[in-house]
Amino acid sequence: MAQRRLRLGMVGGGQGAFIGAVHRIAARLDDRFELVAGALSSDPQRAQASAAEAGIARSYADWREMARAEAARDDGIDAVAIVTPNHLHAPVATAFLEAGIHVVCDKPLAISLAEGEALAKLAREKNKLFALTHTYSGYPMVRYARELIDTGELGELRLVQVEYAQDWLAEPIETSGTNKQAGWRTDPALAGPAGCLGDIGTHAYHLAAFVMGMTPSSLAAEVHTFVPGRRIDDHVQAMLRYANGARGMLWASQVASGAENALRLRVYGTKANLAFDQEQPNELWFTPLGGSAERLTRGRVKSAIAAHATRVPAGHPEGYLEAFAQLYKDAALQIEALDSGRALPAESLLLTTVEDGVAGLRFIDAMLASSTADGQWREIGGV
Amino acid sequence: MAQRRLRLGMVGGGQGAFIGAVHRIAARLDDRFELVAGALSSDPQRAQASAAEAGIARSYADWREMARAEAARDDGIDAVAIVTPNHLHAPVATAFLEAGIHVVCDKPLAISLAEGEALAKLAREKNKLFALTHTYSGYPMVRYARELIDTGELGELRLVQVEYAQDWLAEPIETSGTNKQAGWRTDPALAGPAGCLGDIGTHAYHLAAFVMGMTPSSLAAEVHTFVPGRRIDDHVQAMLRYANGARGMLWASQVASGAENALRLRVYGTKANLAFDQEQPNELWFTPLGGSAERLTRGRVKSAIAAHATRVPAGHPEGYLEAFAQLYKDAALQIEALDSGRALPAESLLLTTVEDGVAGLRFIDAMLASSTADGQWREIGGV
Amino acid sequence: MAQRRLRLGMVGGGQGAFIGAVHRIAARLDDRFELVAGALSSDPQRAQASAAEAGIARSYADWREMARAEAARDDGIDAVAIVTPNHLHAPVATAFLEAGIHVVCDKPLAISLAEGEALAKLAREKNKLFALTHTYSGYPMVRYARELIDTGELGELRLVQVEYAQDWLAEPIETSGTNKQAGWRTDPALAGPAGCLGDIGTHAYHLAAFVMGMTPSSLAAEVHTFVPGRRIDDHVQAMLRYANGARGMLWASQVASGAENALRLRVYGTKANLAFDQEQPNELWFTPLGGSAERLTRGRVKSAIAAHATRVPAGHPEGYLEAFAQLYKDAALQIEALDSGRALPAESLLLTTVEDGVAGLRFIDAMLASSTADGQWREIGGV
Amino acid sequence: MAQRRLRLGMVGGGQGAFIGAVHRIAARLDDRFELVAGALSSDPQRAQASAAEAGIARSYADWREMARAEAARDDGIDAVAIVTPNHLHAPVATAFLEAGIHVVCDKPLAISLAEGEALAKLAREKNKLFALTHTYSGYPMVRYARELIDTGELGELRLVQVEYAQDWLAEPIETSGTNKQAGWRTDPALAGPAGCLGDIGTHAYHLAAFVMGMTPSSLAAEVHTFVPGRRIDDHVQAMLRYANGARGMLWASQVASGAENALRLRVYGTKANLAFDQEQPNELWFTPLGGSAERLTRGRVKSAIAAHATRVPAGHPEGYLEAFAQLYKDAALQIEALDSGRALPAESLLLTTVEDGVAGLRFIDAMLASSTADGQWREIGGV
Repeated sequence: MAQRRLRLGMVGGGQGAFIGAVHRIAARLDDRFELVAGALSSDPQRAQASAAEAGIARSYADWREMARAEAARDDGIDAVAIVTPNHLHAPVATAFLEAGIHVVCDKPLAISLAEGEALAKLAREKNKLFALTHTYSGYPMVRYARELIDTGELGELRLVQVEYAQDWLAEPIETSGTNKQAGWRTDPALAGPAGCLGDIGTHAYHLAAFVMGMTPSSLAAEVHTFVPGRRIDDHVQAMLRYANGARGMLWASQVASGAENALRLRVYGTKANLAFDQEQPNELWFTPLGGSAERLTRGRVKSAIAAHATRVPAGHPEGYLEAFAQLYKDAALQIEALDSGRALPAESLLLTTVEDGVAGLRFIDAMLASSTADGQWREIGGV
Repeated sequence: MAQRRLRLGMVGGGQGAFIGAVHRIAARLDDRFELVAGALSSDPQRAQASAAEAGIARSYADWREMARAEAARDDGIDAVAIVTPNHLHAPVATAFLEAGIHVVCDKPLAISLAEGEALAKLAREKNKLFALTHTYSGYPMVRYARELIDTGELGELRLVQVEYAQDWLAEPIETSGTNKQAGWRTDPALAGPAGCLGDIGTHAYHLAAFVMGMTPSSLAAEVHTFVPGRRIDDHVQAMLRYANGARGMLWASQVASGAENALRLRVYGTKANLAFDQEQPNELWFTPLGGSAERLTRGRVKSAIAAHATRVPAGHPEGYLEAFAQLYKDAALQIEALDSGRALPAESLLLTTVEDGVAGLRFIDAMLASSTADGQWREIGGV
Repeated sequence: MAQRRLRLGMVGGGQGAFIGAVHRIAARLDDRFELVAGALSSDPQRAQASAAEAGIARSYADWREMARAEAARDDGIDAVAIVTPNHLHAPVATAFLEAGIHVVCDKPLAISLAEGEALAKLAREKNKLFALTHTYSGYPMVRYARELIDTGELGELRLVQVEYAQDWLAEPIETSGTNKQAGWRTDPALAGPAGCLGDIGTHAYHLAAFVMGMTPSSLAAEVHTFVPGRRIDDHVQAMLRYANGARGMLWASQVASGAENALRLRVYGTKANLAFDQEQPNELWFTPLGGSAERLTRGRVKSAIAAHATRVPAGHPEGYLEAFAQLYKDAALQIEALDSGRALPAESLLLTTVEDGVAGLRFIDAMLASSTADGQWREIGGV
Repeated sequence: MAQRRLRLGMVGGGQGAFIGAVHRIAARLDDRFELVAGALSSDPQRAQASAAEAGIARSYADWREMARAEAARDDGIDAVAIVTPNHLHAPVATAFLEAGIHVVCDKPLAISLAEGEALAKLAREKNKLFALTHTYSGYPMVRYARELIDTGELGELRLVQVEYAQDWLAEPIETSGTNKQAGWRTDPALAGPAGCLGDIGTHAYHLAAFVMGMTPSSLAAEVHTFVPGRRIDDHVQAMLRYANGARGMLWASQVASGAENALRLRVYGTKANLAFDQEQPNELWFTPLGGSAERLTRGRVKSAIAAHATRVPAGHPEGYLEAFAQLYKDAALQIEALDSGRALPAESLLLTTVEDGVAGLRFIDAMLASSTADGQWREIGGV
């Protein structure tokens, strides 16, 4: 028998937003969710219009009311997707967790470490799903990279180079007043204290941690703003140290002219290296010490882990939306298990968690602290 | 206001099939269709189980009955997706067109030119949509390639090289009895007289025609079977001549060891060339005479045509499922127009048609005829 | 002890020529030849000036005299490099062979099969080296490709795709009067009956034969001229059949807008395929049936054959001049063996021979004959 | 008239060395030098045998004697190539400069900044050429990259990412006793205080400076040794700051498993970025803000600067030896000018200088100092 589709609500993601539409496609793609309720905008009229456009049955003007009302319905939502600007992630998530509703939340988790830790505590107490959408960990070749390292194919890890380059903020477009994305993402009141750092730096950090299976113990950083008048960072760079002696570098930039969405990871161990480029996500490069590069491809690698995250055969490219859909697929598996008191299915366990979100906030704190101290090495807590 | 989701039925695509699941995701992705009815297998029990698994409300044991019953319901399906083996395309499509139901059909159109021409005639008479799923024409960069040629950026066309290489039939896997795909695709009773030629040769032919805006006037071909005992071709190659003097070559192979799904097109004009590789569908290479190659990317090119076929920004890769979804999105636009007596929307007109399917059957006929005549040049009718 | 540098003469290659300077660098690169004599132009003054510019001690106004005079000297040249337009290859080579001087000759061998066969006979009788400079067979990764096939890594060969695309003749530049290269290469009196076919089609043909270890038994061809007013072909295409049942395609074009020097070979066997692109000569792609592509690199592959043709370690790219130099290095090895009555050293035996040149002329003849017969299949003699 | 070939001597580069043979080919390739004298080894017998093998007429057992003797001959060498281990660069260069002989020297310039500065002073006083072989600045596409930045095509520079990764020292091969290269390069007595840092870190640093037209004002570094027991660094990484506000990162590693000779540079300005990969030296990628990447190729770009550093047409790859040869070609131009009292020719001025070498030593000093101070930012002197 087919599973019942889970009922999904959404907070944020009204007209003019980017990530809301992505979440809607992602939730729908593998047919495990049905979007039935939403508070898509803080402006009631816009909320209503956005919901109608998205074919959402129940539209709310206020997310607090939505949490209460949905919790009260027999056919209320099973889960909520939170796609607001960063400053609302924690309050909204808190409200829905309190109402007993599972949460899928965009990153970064919150705008302060304290907020994030409180949320993690609450999620554990309520025994509800809290999935953080670090999209790139949904790619099969990213998961396969993790598997290769986990099974020792790279040997002892020595080096990591991770970077995330974009160019869309190379000029002060936030001053135009017409770019809603640029507006809130460069406004510390909405985005939190970290700009590029929180927006894409955390993706780079998470990707490296996810694939390597370990996070750095300390870092030396520079958090920088290039565009005159900008109120938040638009470029960050750091050196990394790991407990096992590994070294690395991380940089993220939204002023890297010519870059589209260039998230790239390279990890070198004593036996081999691997390289992943988000813009070519159907492939993973593996090169042994002294040897030739192999271009491993989605659909051809023998891996149950990769197969779980793929839909079509080798040579039929999948992309960003499928990676995103994978997070929803895994979320559905976990929600069904939680709701029926079963253990979480093994194949769903690569889903990013609220703890991953807390780790991201610790990274942000350490970056800001090191940069303030002119690049002194800083411990990253919680490792 | 949001459009109502169109009601979709499906014939074929039961358990063990490949393309049925692809159609289901594609129809769902852009939220314009709801799959409500199906005759997913000729085996009633399998049909029932497959429908339940796919979450389909109304399951039929027989497609003839499905056509009758759905036509009679007030909430009957608006359109049917035909994903059976080739020999059923025409009979099933005929039944649904006769019942006044729009058709989305997998390729090739039919197993004979006569059958295909009759179908085209019927579709015109009934004034119903007949969309043929030549998936690759749904890629934004393929449509942009067509636009570049159409607007003269290549100058007068001189050369085309098109190829489609796979390796999954390099060995006689159809004799195993366990590979359902290999079984019917190498059985002339189910696949028709053309194996590799009909399965992927027609894709290559259509892609070149779609991008170039013209079809060859004649060809000299070799239709070949490499694997001993195989009852159908597994490799074809041809030289092409065009009315304007252009020359070209086409090959398609399912025994090209190492190839995944390597559909590639290169077109050279007097001013420039362009190159597209289906396995890297977010990019299109453009190189002027005497100049440097430009890697044009989805999301960065300035084109309303490309933008209509894309969902996420530059650097966020889309893939095969999105290309397929594009055909369903365009089909929805056309169905809504047809049902309300409006002209077909301009942005939907790149959808592949029943005439494209007839052109593909003419290509098959000419290939078989030329090969039988040891490669003599043969006219391709209907140009 | 170091070998004495061999004394080299040159016929052709005066000011304005391209390939003469390439031969001079190639002969010098591995330090086995010293260029001491030349008849660089049929214009005595230009011959003198060109020789002075190239630092050549003995300049002749006439190649016949040069052959006689050098043969008579104690310190006369050991070998001559022939870099004239095609129509002179055979007469010049004949004169030097008759004078007992080894020959290194640019391709194509001659402007007719009869001429070529006579030359081959003469070279055998005189027991002198006759090396034809099919440059691309000097690349280590081309030789390694041949080795992989020879040792069975691809299994039984099934398919070949070989192509050579350039764009420098896309427009009628030969009418300008100022482009010496374009002038003679499009003049049948100097180039022979084959234009693009002789100039680069023979390179493509030779590359495929060299790597595959076999030549096709028959072909069906189209020899075409795109540029109005041009007196010779500028585009050729053909289908190929091999005695073992393999199939293939070959095309060569000098009107392929945007192409630089795009000589590419792909060979598919029952077990794997390999792909080589002359513009990236330090790598060779190997992909097994059902598997992942491996990017094999010069300097990393374990092969004495490849090592013999390389000078610097992995990651330090070699190029066209080194490939060309390899032919001279192998020629030196053979000359020393011939002059001292020793057997030719095994490592030198991949040097292209006069028989390779005859095979190229047979290919030209078959292409022209098939094209004249509207693409009928024609046997290629001498296989 | 042809120029007379300059007479070249060589110190170091005997049997078992790598770079000596490279210098010999490079000096010969463009036919501007003739190698006539050498002190190829400190072991007299090996020196004699090495010279004979290399076809060198005059072999010396001692480089001091060579400097004296050659200076005294009428036909003495014009220039000496120094290809010894690092600790001898300065003493040997001093001896030849004192003898009035031009110097071409491998990098790093010396094993201490004081030594290097003294050398620079001496070279200026003697008015002799001192060329440092930072090979990679001989590539035409590197020079073209510099030209693009110099003419403002990138706008104001903001970011640089430069890296040089190899894997040949990933294991403690220096302990084998059989690898001469690994032996001296990991021995501080011969290599100086900087291992990977001096060997390839200086190449990365110079490449970035050469292309950007500016050096960083300060850096924060980590100099590290991964392989247990190794006496010298094998991995370095640093963050960079420039006077104009630009930021950057540099890393170099000889333990990056799988890497061959991966020297890569990316520079981002306000208007565009460019990217160069030494392993694909015939191309340079240029991508404007918000636009598409262009693959600029050697031979196709319109640039007198690039043309001066190239020998064969577009599509005919050049490589490492040609880049190296370019330094010798430029050195010949400068020697001829210096010897005849003419101004240095403009086209030769991109040749790396003794000042470039001093800058490299300042970089080494700052890296070591910062790393010792646990990554504190350190000024780089002399900017």
